[in-house]
Amino acid sequence: MQIPSGYHTESPKRPATQDDGIAGLVTILDYVRANGPTTRPRLVEATGLSRAVVTQRVTELLDHGLLENGELGPSTGGRAPRIVHFRAGAGHLLAADLGATSTSVAVVDLSGKILCHVEEPSDISSGPEASLGRVEELFQQCLADVDAPGSLWGIGIGVPGPVEFEQGRPVSPPIMPGWDGFDVRGRFADYEVPVFVDNDVNVMALAELRAGVARGSENVVFVKIGTGIGAGIIVRGQLHRGTQGCAGDIGHIQATNDQSIICRCGNVGCLEALAGGAALSRDAAGLAQDGRSPLLAKLLEEKGSLEAADVAFAASHGDAPATELIVNAGRLVGSTLAGIVNFFNPSLVVIGGGVAGSGDLLLATIRQGVYQRSLPLATRDLLVKRSTPGGLAGVVGAATMVTDELFAPQRLGQWLAAGTPGGS
Amino acid sequence: MQIPSGYHTESPKRPATQDDGIAGLVTILDYVRANGPTTRPRLVEATGLSRAVVTQRVTELLDHGLLENGELGPSTGGRAPRIVHFRAGAGHLLAADLGATSTSVAVVDLSGKILCHVEEPSDISSGPEASLGRVEELFQQCLADVDAPGSLWGIGIGVPGPVEFEQGRPVSPPIMPGWDGFDVRGRFADYEVPVFVDNDVNVMALAELRAGVARGSENVVFVKIGTGIGAGIIVRGQLHRGTQGCAGDIGHIQATNDQSIICRCGNVGCLEALAGGAALSRDAAGLAQDGRSPLLAKLLEEKGSLEAADVAFAASHGDAPATELIVNAGRLVGSTLAGIVNFFNPSLVVIGGGVAGSGDLLLATIRQGVYQRSLPLATRDLLVKRSTPGGLAGVVGAATMVTDELFAPQRLGQWLAAGTPGGS
Repeated sequence: MQIPSGYHTESPKRPATQDDGIAGLVTILDYVRANGPTTRPRLVEATGLSRAVVTQRVTELLDHGLLENGELGPSTGGRAPRIVHFRAGAGHLLAADLGATSTSVAVVDLSGKILCHVEEPSDISSGPEASLGRVEELFQQCLADVDAPGSLWGIGIGVPGPVEFEQGRPVSPPIMPGWDGFDVRGRFADYEVPVFVDNDVNVMALAELRAGVARGSENVVFVKIGTGIGAGIIVRGQLHRGTQGCAGDIGHIQATNDQSIICRCGNVGCLEALAGGAALSRDAAGLAQDGRSPLLAKLLEEKGSLEAADVAFAASHGDAPATELIVNAGRLVGSTLAGIVNFFNPSLVVIGGGVAGSGDLLLATIRQGVYQRSLPLATRDLLVKRSTPGGLAGVVGAATMVTDELFAPQRLGQWLAAGTPGGS
Repeated sequence: MQIPSGYHTESPKRPATQDDGIAGLVTILDYVRANGPTTRPRLVEATGLSRAVVTQRVTELLDHGLLENGELGPSTGGRAPRIVHFRAGAGHLLAADLGATSTSVAVVDLSGKILCHVEEPSDISSGPEASLGRVEELFQQCLADVDAPGSLWGIGIGVPGPVEFEQGRPVSPPIMPGWDGFDVRGRFADYEVPVFVDNDVNVMALAELRAGVARGSENVVFVKIGTGIGAGIIVRGQLHRGTQGCAGDIGHIQATNDQSIICRCGNVGCLEALAGGAALSRDAAGLAQDGRSPLLAKLLEEKGSLEAADVAFAASHGDAPATELIVNAGRLVGSTLAGIVNFFNPSLVVIGGGVAGSGDLLLATIRQGVYQRSLPLATRDLLVKRSTPGGLAGVVGAATMVTDELFAPQRLGQWLAAGTPGGS
């Protein structure tokens, strides 16, 4: 999984003007980052900018070390045009994905290519000092394995809880004791580069948007079904974090009138408390212990605990109570998503996370729920897809978050005025 | 209610560049439209553009007839600076708001000031030819009352059903027989100006955003509770129409597990079928007929039918069954909105529409439902407000839709290349 980056897979046509400064630079850089090596004539065609503007802006980007000249391209009549490349090796990024029980760290080039990746078990409840100290050690380990990475341009970190994005601080994260309000950005101040922190679901949504199944989509809901349930929202090709940065917290939407199960948030009827991974483990243990599912009882005896994958395994072996558990969970997720589809009218819903990966039955019942309760117009072209497989979404997304911010028009303008951070 | 227009009440600070063409024109025009008459030195301060760029761009906007020179402003030391105004009278817009049972039409200047307004009872089910023919007559009537309106720049129309915005055509509108797929834009092709069509809820949300209680807000959910229930969504200060243009269709979100009431969409448990104006009328008639509410029975006998305002009236006179009706409706709307708040994390929810205007009890129970079921972080600074009073939201919003589109950067660039449509 590699980040093709760029804000759109196709840069929007803009009207040609003689003097559009930063906007022209951003348009050209976005196009090359999204579409790969290209020529000046192709840039004129694709961006709608004039030949003179393209020539001038490409020269500036070459001077700043963001583009580099390559071989000659195919001629379309006259002299063969020179191919220009995005200079992905001009610098590197550090990316970390902190989960509840594992830490994944990578060194990534500016195009999102992973140069080194390490992953190890960890415990987020050991607190920010211990966790981030270990992240720093892993960064150094990883860097030692990379030849000539160029200078460091930025750091991206995903954490398993809500984050105030502007401040780079977790806010009341339920499974992260000691992290509330912790200045994660400040912890990496010594590196003297921009540091961006967001919750793991937003980061995974970015990975899908730039490098996964949501590539090129405008309006997307990414749903992570793991121990808990959360969503990342893409509006007009950009992450929607919401006013407090907590948009997408769908795990605590009321999914049933049933008052019997109290959620860790203190409310009743929450989706997560009925259909998340922890809920499936709890209900599967119940089925094992009261004798309704001999297969789950056998698995529980062997393993000491049950998780979503065990329920999926039992269901795929014809265990009726296990099948019922998954169908119920899928229906609740599906009917909740139906409401979200009616409200938001996305073109794509992506289902990811460990529980979603447990088997096809869950995805099938989620789809059924969405299509049953959403309005016909909203589902006319709606796709419900499983997320891109592989465990790298966290670090790819964290790196994408950094490049999205670094190459945003406003910041790029500031850079080019002050000189490119990575130099050339 | 007047449109102050502009994309933000405060134009965002942009880095100063020597040559930013269209972007500079848009920044300056937005600032003057949003903030009113100003001076060149104030523009330099507010936009971050250089003095040279501001001077040059203001001259271009004067040449194009979009700005005009006014009196001298206060001196801050040297020569007193000249005040520049947005030339709101350079042209006019035609705006129409078609409801189920009424038509409202206005002539509006480029700042959104209403120059003439007429409203009359109508029947949307008489079909598009009859309805739009009458709109055209009312446009002409209205125009005859306006002195020197300048040339026509655009037409905006709101209709009570889902619309494919790009095409300007209603799509499967449930209460608009004969309108499905009708080319509303094409109907006004003879006028040779841009025509924009959207559903009434989006149009009302725009009115709140530019001229009402949502002015300056970034993330807003506007909820209309009338005969049906729908929402308009503002993301990053712009309307989110969704992939098919049907975002905000919250009336058909499942609000209860109760299977007894079948909605006009064919599903059960829909919010609209339980808490919309039609549902209140139906349930109030039930209370009147079976003797549970003598007051509603009396009102029904007097008026022949009951509507939300009658239920509110009965509730405010101590009628317990009527109070219960409103409280139940408010709770259902509130808990549905709580899910939307968790998902979307807006800073503001605006409640509008005829039923919302029926009394304070409904708004109070909606608030209660939102705060009870939304996450603490999402409600930290959340406001739930009633919409701006007055019946002009439809035409103000329709006119705002036109100016939003006309003064968008891309379109403005095209215009200035081709000459301003209104001339000068």
